[in-house]
Amino acid sequence: MHALTIVSGQLEWAAKPDPVPQGSQLLVEVRAAGVNPADLLQVRGHYPPPPDVPQDVPGLELAGTVVGVGPLARHFKVGDRVMALVGGGAQAELVLVEESAALPAPVEIGWESAGGFMEAFATAYDALIIQGGLTVGARVLVTGAAGGVGTAAVQLAALAGADVTASVRRTEFHFRLRELGAQRVMPPAEAAAAGPYDLVLELVGGPMLSSHLEQLATSGRMLVIGVGAGRRLDLDLSLLMSRRAGIVASTLRARSPFEKAALVRTLGERLLPQLTSHRLLVPVAATFPLTDAPAAYARVGEGGNFGKVVLLSGG
Amino acid sequence: MHALTIVSGQLEWAAKPDPVPQGSQLLVEVRAAGVNPADLLQVRGHYPPPPDVPQDVPGLELAGTVVGVGPLARHFKVGDRVMALVGGGAQAELVLVEESAALPAPVEIGWESAGGFMEAFATAYDALIIQGGLTVGARVLVTGAAGGVGTAAVQLAALAGADVTASVRRTEFHFRLRELGAQRVMPPAEAAAAGPYDLVLELVGGPMLSSHLEQLATSGRMLVIGVGAGRRLDLDLSLLMSRRAGIVASTLRARSPFEKAALVRTLGERLLPQLTSHRLLVPVAATFPLTDAPAAYARVGEGGNFGKVVLLSGG
Repeated sequence: MHALTIVSGQLEWAAKPDPVPQGSQLLVEVRAAGVNPADLLQVRGHYPPPPDVPQDVPGLELAGTVVGVGPLARHFKVGDRVMALVGGGAQAELVLVEESAALPAPVEIGWESAGGFMEAFATAYDALIIQGGLTVGARVLVTGAAGGVGTAAVQLAALAGADVTASVRRTEFHFRLRELGAQRVMPPAEAAAAGPYDLVLELVGGPMLSSHLEQLATSGRMLVIGVGAGRRLDLDLSLLMSRRAGIVASTLRARSPFEKAALVRTLGERLLPQLTSHRLLVPVAATFPLTDAPAAYARVGEGGNFGKVVLLSGG
Repeated sequence: MHALTIVSGQLEWAAKPDPVPQGSQLLVEVRAAGVNPADLLQVRGHYPPPPDVPQDVPGLELAGTVVGVGPLARHFKVGDRVMALVGGGAQAELVLVEESAALPAPVEIGWESAGGFMEAFATAYDALIIQGGLTVGARVLVTGAAGGVGTAAVQLAALAGADVTASVRRTEFHFRLRELGAQRVMPPAEAAAAGPYDLVLELVGGPMLSSHLEQLATSGRMLVIGVGAGRRLDLDLSLLMSRRAGIVASTLRARSPFEKAALVRTLGERLLPQLTSHRLLVPVAATFPLTDAPAAYARVGEGGNFGKVVLLSGG
């Protein structure tokens, strides 16, 4: 098989031995694999993968067809359509997936949506619902709302009955974010003054961080998931104390396979029905052939996409 | 009656009209009233009291005897010994207390302990148990462990089965903190390198804040309650992201009377039995007559006390 391979900080389409499923692993022929900002960091050497995955093949999510199963696999069989969350290695023709990391890929959605679903929705669901406890009437600000996690978060927050403000630079995305359920869509500077917010989902970082903190309501929380625009914050703790507020940060990737399996199971129970019935959508900004990954990475690096950039395999 | 009164940033022992209990208020003849760091801030004009209390009389906690009741009071009667958490006004001969803010003062403990119990234990219980969810085996660091909140927190954490590290500057307090249940007692610089900690109860602030954050375990939390040594923090959010950690801050004083009443009720159910049976102690570093409050305030300002400084009334 071939896999996208990081060689001296460059991406190459390289031959690799076909992997063989052991234990409860599935061997999946990849049809679609999302590109995430973390992949770009990995190519630059800033985001080392966990020890249990291929170290030189990027890719945190995929969809495809099961073409082999280990002797202990119980839930999937050859021919099944699956989508999976993995610690790395997804951007290849073949990938090994623990079956606990896989969900059925609904026939109601295309491969490109299935390949871009897992990472963004797992991140958004974990942050907003599990960690943030978001529910009816909570006032939430989603920054960087047009991105993969952002579009997932806007939809989940709206489904949860929250009052959703979406912050996005490009005015041409305002209408689409309203379609996804945002009550208010504003440019960043305006959204950063339009609180109070019970929850701020911070997907951008940088100079707006302080303004966002100042807009937190009593007992409000800032959930920091992405800090591409800047990770440093000169924090006055008395600001948090006076409103009993907090900052909590998270990454999905640092979690153990057991924690990820628990999260995948929850997504299967809670979100798969919504995806099948199209109450949740996976907006895809662009697709590229798996063999043309550098163009896809460049597109993610440029930013300004609405939703996901997804790599597709011939299949 | 007379009350400690803030006049142009100075404390005076001034005559005031006797208050009259309305509704479900109790009129309490004060026997003991703790002095808290917030009182010192209030004298300097930095900690404005909430609107529903005397604006010029400090004091957040007291113990004494009920000498009058409003027509709607149901739970206490004239002659009862009570202790109470108030938004201000406690350092006076007579004080009005909503009965929802009062608990019976156990005969098993002296007035000075009863007068110093409420604020410190309410703060520590709320932070560690309610907000922090502290339980068996959790590794907790209590900074400024010799103070009023610190000694309360060490005891509560030990009762909860946590693994307690106490950070304190003065070596002469090490043995007493071990007696209160701390497994390890260290000077601040040593404690700030002895993690990982699941919870850091930050009662000091200042230059150690960054070190404490670096010692947080996966999913760890820093609970910021006091920042007397410095409230600014140059925060690298990626430090929190990599370990899914967070910073949450709180003050008791900013809460509504309803929230305080709920907390007082919880203290009555959960902590009063421990206080009566001496499983929880209120260490008192020094007492002063209510008429000699400036000396008591100076003592709190100097720091280095083990436990509370409490004002006593002749009675």
